Amino acid sequence: MTRLISYLGPAGTYAESAAIACSNWLLETTDQESALCPYPSIAQTLRAASEQRTDFAVVPVENLIEGSVSMTLDTLWQLGNLQIQKAVILPISHALISQASVVQQIQTVYSHPQALAQCQEWLEKWIPEVKLIPTNSTAEALQHVDPHGSVGVIASRRAAQLYQYPILAHPINDRPDNCTRFWLLSLIPSLTGSHTSIAFSFPANLSGALAKALEIFARRDINLSRIESRPTKRSLGDYLFFIDFEADIQDESVQSALAELADCTETLKIFGSYTATFID
Amino acid sequence: MTRLISYLGPAGTYAESAAIACSNWLLETTDQESALCPYPSIAQTLRAASEQRTDFAVVPVENLIEGSVSMTLDTLWQLGNLQIQKAVILPISHALISQASVVQQIQTVYSHPQALAQCQEWLEKWIPEVKLIPTNSTAEALQHVDPHGSVGVIASRRAAQLYQYPILAHPINDRPDNCTRFWLLSLIPSLTGSHTSIAFSFPANLSGALAKALEIFARRDINLSRIESRPTKRSLGDYLFFIDFEADIQDESVQSALAELADCTETLKIFGSYTATFID
Repeated sequence: MTRLISYLGPAGTYAESAAIACSNWLLETTDQESALCPYPSIAQTLRAASEQRTDFAVVPVENLIEGSVSMTLDTLWQLGNLQIQKAVILPISHALISQASVVQQIQTVYSHPQALAQCQEWLEKWIPEVKLIPTNSTAEALQHVDPHGSVGVIASRRAAQLYQYPILAHPINDRPDNCTRFWLLSLIPSLTGSHTSIAFSFPANLSGALAKALEIFARRDINLSRIESRPTKRSLGDYLFFIDFEADIQDESVQSALAELADCTETLKIFGSYTATFID
Repeated sequence: MTRLISYLGPAGTYAESAAIACSNWLLETTDQESALCPYPSIAQTLRAASEQRTDFAVVPVENLIEGSVSMTLDTLWQLGNLQIQKAVILPISHALISQASVVQQIQTVYSHPQALAQCQEWLEKWIPEVKLIPTNSTAEALQHVDPHGSVGVIASRRAAQLYQYPILAHPINDRPDNCTRFWLLSLIPSLTGSHTSIAFSFPANLSGALAKALEIFARRDINLSRIESRPTKRSLGDYLFFIDFEADIQDESVQSALAELADCTETLKIFGSYTATFID
């Protein structure tokens, strides 16, 4: 049976490249074929898997430059039933796509706000007077390409190929090592792996409580690879914490750490253990 | 002499309302008149004050629903020379601005992505088929208002009055208690107040180091009101931490805490002590 994977569409986004990598991984490890279903937002991508309209969801979690993707963390906390099956880390390499014959012809550049930010120095150097217009996704920006070449779009090379538009310059991102981490999620209990993700909230007294929670991991030499605070949306200064650590949930030390953590947190959600892979 | 305050413009943004409140506060406390200068981005707003083209800058720091404003934190860390003079907390109350006679006439809604997100439930209830288009600011969205009423814009009531467009519905934000915290910054050394903000990075070993850093505050009963992690942009999993706590930098306990913190951090930046005020 073909499995369905929801992802942040349309076709040609970086999320689609991540979803293709996850689809290949599913084929290799479980011998299951899968089909990709684009969704218009991260919340809808996750809800599709949470409500069993798809079997899996692929969403961005963290970018090297921009940091955590708040919408992903907030929605995962709210849904509460999705488990992480796999992490893939995708290099982000932006192309300037346009019908212009020279860069200086371009008067307006469309792209996702993060992509515009990631190419800021390049744009300031080559087309400092250009007008920047944000769009909902890099692929959506391609709708604005015009035959006269007054418009440029920042998106992936794959997007240019898919929509058959010429690439004027590549790569144009200011940081050549930029990358984004994506998670493959589903209702299936997560497997085993060297990375584990959890989230928790405290009843009150942030400074004491968080210090105590982190000390639980430090005492066991469990290394945290990420910590991210998000507002609970109850009042300013009231937070959730998302933590990734480098250990398997089946380890005895992790089991005892999580038991201790459950005692000092208000709500503790465990998103599971998984492996992480760099993809090209 | 009139002082200049840079803010995230154009006129009619929530940042302008915060800048007006800061301008009033400066007049009351220092008897100085000030003039507001709009800038097109948070980075440019802060850089203007950092490079002495303006005397002060007003920028958003944290929204109750969306969380921290990454661009503000990243730019403050990078510039390193601005001190916080004052915090103001502004209620965020969105209006639907349009020439339409009824809401159902609207086919497209323009606004800043955060404002679109904050009115999502209202939009889904009243105009579920509407197309949402992101803009760089709520005030910029007003350029798209059309005489036929097919366009709606989400912005403040002040923006509607300023640009003389009719308000079709208000308030339309899903959370009536939504608010944003802004900081007034300048090169002047900060004064005194019940809130202090700092930021620091660690050489390595996140779990142990952060637990130890937080314990420095917990041991002295200094309450943290905010903790925010940001990527250092060196590699995935390498972070800066922004911390706000409820104490004055001149307190003896804070002085000893900061001395201890300096020993266990790689870089420690102190943004100063200040008072916070809720404004209407």
